Amino acid sequence: MKRLPSRKSIAVGIARRGGDGPADDLVAVEEPLEIRFAGETVAVIMRSPGDDHRLALGYLFGERIIRSATDASTVFHCGRIGDEGYGNTIEVAPASGADVDWARLDGARRAGVTSSACGVCGRMTVADLLEGLPPLPPGLVLPAERIGAAIEALRRHQPTFEATGGTHAAALWDLDGELVAVHEDVGRHNAVDKVVGGLLLARAAGGHPVPALLAVSGRGGFDIVQKAARAGIPVVACVSAPTSLAIAVARAAGITLAGFVRGERMNVYTGAERLTGLGPGG
Amino acid sequence: MKRLPSRKSIAVGIARRGGDGPADDLVAVEEPLEIRFAGETVAVIMRSPGDDHRLALGYLFGERIIRSATDASTVFHCGRIGDEGYGNTIEVAPASGADVDWARLDGARRAGVTSSACGVCGRMTVADLLEGLPPLPPGLVLPAERIGAAIEALRRHQPTFEATGGTHAAALWDLDGELVAVHEDVGRHNAVDKVVGGLLLARAAGGHPVPALLAVSGRGGFDIVQKAARAGIPVVACVSAPTSLAIAVARAAGITLAGFVRGERMNVYTGAERLTGLGPGG
Repeated sequence: MKRLPSRKSIAVGIARRGGDGPADDLVAVEEPLEIRFAGETVAVIMRSPGDDHRLALGYLFGERIIRSATDASTVFHCGRIGDEGYGNTIEVAPASGADVDWARLDGARRAGVTSSACGVCGRMTVADLLEGLPPLPPGLVLPAERIGAAIEALRRHQPTFEATGGTHAAALWDLDGELVAVHEDVGRHNAVDKVVGGLLLARAAGGHPVPALLAVSGRGGFDIVQKAARAGIPVVACVSAPTSLAIAVARAAGITLAGFVRGERMNVYTGAERLTGLGPGG
Repeated sequence: MKRLPSRKSIAVGIARRGGDGPADDLVAVEEPLEIRFAGETVAVIMRSPGDDHRLALGYLFGERIIRSATDASTVFHCGRIGDEGYGNTIEVAPASGADVDWARLDGARRAGVTSSACGVCGRMTVADLLEGLPPLPPGLVLPAERIGAAIEALRRHQPTFEATGGTHAAALWDLDGELVAVHEDVGRHNAVDKVVGGLLLARAAGGHPVPALLAVSGRGGFDIVQKAARAGIPVVACVSAPTSLAIAVARAAGITLAGFVRGERMNVYTGAERLTGLGPGG
């Protein structure tokens, strides 16, 4: 797979009030990525450049168009290096005999509505969001302190945020506590897609990581929990607040959802039985 | 226009670590809204319930399907109160003789790609984003301290954020410093759409507010600046970081973009000439 150099931040000139006048500031780069599958445009997404192959695989997996990285033969940026817009279109070519859901691809392409909602008169239900989920690893129990440690570790993997204040991040650990993938992106959902893409690539390379814990910066919306459920990740931790729909999806999918994780403290919204050491009454 | 009671937060039971055991926590409500125009689904959006008529009008305006609130005759929730899913589908009926861009409506409906990107091989350019913008009010100059004051005022209009930590907010002031609209929402872009919807309704009611300053919580992505440009708002201030594309769109549209606004301090990324009192070298 062709890779472009990651260019996640760029210096811009600014005027400053309450400081020393004109200066330079590093800002997070936001650029469109058109994701194509088998020659058809599936989506155009605003993202941080870099790791586009992971983003494309993770996105297509989340949309249930592919089921593994081996459903793709090649993943490449269209056009020629140096052309205008080069690097902002990525093509995923299906492998011969791939287990592709062509009907879902067609639906994703044609739907003017967001593809994770059924769009029939507002009757999108939690059940729709959960259709066809893989089973979660059975019997998994984690010490609650692993969650605080994960959020701390996530902070140490955010150089672009440190430089710009403009990016989110997501990281995935396996059952043994090994880091599977960590990514920063201007979109939190993209960071999760890149992490899931990393999981798919680790599997395609013959590894057998059992996903255990996903940590995300900022808030947790329904889409984050849905992507975790789709990838078979049993525990999701976010730095700040989850939404009502994130909680509903987590409960229905059997996912443990923690929020407002700050050092020793955290709120556990669903699946507390999977955590040990929550303390009295926890 | 029928209005539903706003239900932006809900109490959920949680387990807590580092606290007093089980408790209740208020979380931000996130629910889908299907926006229909003339009977056709235009989009399904995750949003905070409440002010859906403003969201629908602001969204359709931002997508350039309608040009004013008077292009709509009625805006109503579909179905019957009490039905499952009631309140999550809103229909905007065009007024007779309305200035509707039916081609854009058709494009928005059929495009599987996000409708603000042209999606042709990644060649989405800033010029595409800026097509057909209205002129900004000429000669507008604001004291820089108005920006700090706006961000402070925005914080005082965030009761749902205070309660849940899970919502963003946007507020718009006119040239005279009068508040035109302020809204909270789980999606920052929705908060801006609701504010723009409020501006359209104020105009439809015979008012002539000249939009001057939009303040948004958190970061500023390209979509926020694009929506501001579309609504003719000359100054945009965000609490934290703008992205590279937000800056590029602001520069091309002639918008003043400030970020990292903290009390007296701020960074001005574009259009500093519109602000007085930036201080030496500013």
